[in-house]
Amino acid sequence: MTDEKYMQLAIELAKKAEGWTNPNPLVGAIVVKNGNIIGQGYHEKLGMPHAERNALANCTEDPKGATIYVTLEPCCHYGRTPPCTEAIIEKGISRVVVGVQDPNLIVAGKGIGILEKSGIQVTLGILEKECRELNKVFFHYMIEKKPFVAMKYAMTMDGKIAAYTGKSKWITGETARDHVHMLRHKYMAIMVGIGTVLKDNPRLDCRLPGLKNPKRIVCDTNLRIPVDSYIVSTAGSIETYIATASDDNEKIKRLTEAGCFVLSIPKSHNHIDLNILMQILGKKGIDSILLEGGGTLNYEALNKGLVDYVYAYVAPKIFGGKDALTAVEGTGAENPEKAFLLKNRKITLLGDDILMEYEV
Amino acid sequence: MTDEKYMQLAIELAKKAEGWTNPNPLVGAIVVKNGNIIGQGYHEKLGMPHAERNALANCTEDPKGATIYVTLEPCCHYGRTPPCTEAIIEKGISRVVVGVQDPNLIVAGKGIGILEKSGIQVTLGILEKECRELNKVFFHYMIEKKPFVAMKYAMTMDGKIAAYTGKSKWITGETARDHVHMLRHKYMAIMVGIGTVLKDNPRLDCRLPGLKNPKRIVCDTNLRIPVDSYIVSTAGSIETYIATASDDNEKIKRLTEAGCFVLSIPKSHNHIDLNILMQILGKKGIDSILLEGGGTLNYEALNKGLVDYVYAYVAPKIFGGKDALTAVEGTGAENPEKAFLLKNRKITLLGDDILMEYEV
Repeated sequence: MTDEKYMQLAIELAKKAEGWTNPNPLVGAIVVKNGNIIGQGYHEKLGMPHAERNALANCTEDPKGATIYVTLEPCCHYGRTPPCTEAIIEKGISRVVVGVQDPNLIVAGKGIGILEKSGIQVTLGILEKECRELNKVFFHYMIEKKPFVAMKYAMTMDGKIAAYTGKSKWITGETARDHVHMLRHKYMAIMVGIGTVLKDNPRLDCRLPGLKNPKRIVCDTNLRIPVDSYIVSTAGSIETYIATASDDNEKIKRLTEAGCFVLSIPKSHNHIDLNILMQILGKKGIDSILLEGGGTLNYEALNKGLVDYVYAYVAPKIFGGKDALTAVEGTGAENPEKAFLLKNRKITLLGDDILMEYEV
Repeated sequence: MTDEKYMQLAIELAKKAEGWTNPNPLVGAIVVKNGNIIGQGYHEKLGMPHAERNALANCTEDPKGATIYVTLEPCCHYGRTPPCTEAIIEKGISRVVVGVQDPNLIVAGKGIGILEKSGIQVTLGILEKECRELNKVFFHYMIEKKPFVAMKYAMTMDGKIAAYTGKSKWITGETARDHVHMLRHKYMAIMVGIGTVLKDNPRLDCRLPGLKNPKRIVCDTNLRIPVDSYIVSTAGSIETYIATASDDNEKIKRLTEAGCFVLSIPKSHNHIDLNILMQILGKKGIDSILLEGGGTLNYEALNKGLVDYVYAYVAPKIFGGKDALTAVEGTGAENPEKAFLLKNRKITLLGDDILMEYEV
């Protein structure tokens, strides 16, 4: 097998932990000796051992003289766990094949340097693009210090996310809706606008068995959220942020008592400043957000350049309606040249629906 | 080769004439003797010889005792050309393989009956589904006596067909726009609403070299079309219908003098009755319409159950805009259960754009 094939296996291993490692990266590792895979492992969950340590611990024979394939540069600092470079050197590994260099400035090439100084042969950049894609959230978060934001919506073939009456249950079929719940597990937090809360009183949880609930963020400029809403009443068990420009201390106190974290955000025009909100959320360790906004919040986020990715579920039906809701509203682009451009499409068939993914 | 493979070849031949035979069907024929293809042909253009006659005329040896594969039941009546059954019998063909029975009541099984009575072996229903699909316009027109209507629109990923300013040039790229011009050749007529004429003063022609211009139909309830519009001023060379409920005889006279055919259609609510218009257009021999309406006309046509097919070109961009235009407007469905349902999707990548096709 080639270096690329072993690295591909390491990538597949890493993916098994999607949704469990944030804000840590997804990492997979394979140990190969005399052409045989003698150990494999991945970073399974935040706070648990790293991929390299798991792979070395699982070895069926002594890894001395073996090659280890790892999707991301091994760490060299004491964080939640001791550095992986130490374990690799101790075990007598003779070659380390790395997918992509760590974007984290604490590591960034230093891990590789330490290994090379110990006389270990290091090969960097095998399936680099794929390894970077695997951790696009982590890379974004490390570099921008703000969450990676993916805008998600379900629409009809004529671009409606609800009928003119506001009714939207359901646009897509079960397969597509299950896919959304998988995304809710994969992303660290869901963000909605207050309009959605007032209209639907949603649960915003992940209903797939064995997967985790995302944290919840409500953009609520004027603090209109009802204290008896589902979100507030479950804030004790699911981390919940209410971002507001209001100084209604009485209401803030009640929400805080209910378990919500109320974030005080200055206004920009008539809306809380989403840029500042994202900086604060980044500092709170939130690396990724699934934006399930209505058209107003979605436009606001796009317009501020905060949206990195789009998941559009398209159902084989037509609502019509001059007053029906669409996914992105607000003022909008003045002409086609000023549109927000999307690239690198990915199309997935989900039952009768179609998922179209794009980078912004 | 099997019957299915010969029939597939006949279908491919038939397709060469797309856009040239309406309201006649597309038909291909292959003559096979001793395992060799000795002749092939297709119905090339309205008024020209049928596929069977072309295939028999092109034979490289005597077709006596040969098998002929033909996508549609051979005709047995004197229409624009003499019956094909006669030619098949005269040439001494011993077996006829037919894709699908003719839906035209003048033929409908009679062609096959005549062949069988002459001692020719007939096999019916080889690639029947594909042969019916090949002529979905013809089957629809023969049975319904109304044109097959395909609604076409180009939209952004957030469902907009124009920015809030009304600007829509261009949403899709060149490959997708060329594809639209190919459709304009394939369909017998284009239909637009008066709103589109007033806003864009469009040409509505086919700009691909060597292909034909469609006839043009403008739905213009109150006869607002400017006499100096591009459409009216070219009505002398391209067949143009103005459908109106107005009795402004002076304006009707001027439009007629300019070469337009003005159709007087009663109103249904505030709009000309599209059902009656379609019946009239059917009687005028128009078998297929590409509906390039705005949201109002599109909704009207869908709501009356007149739309048979949808071509949606989707561009990788987002306009946003609460007041931006969408493909289907009007009142719209009250809730998701009342949506217009689409089926049998077909997805084609056209450069950066995506063409999504559906049956209604």
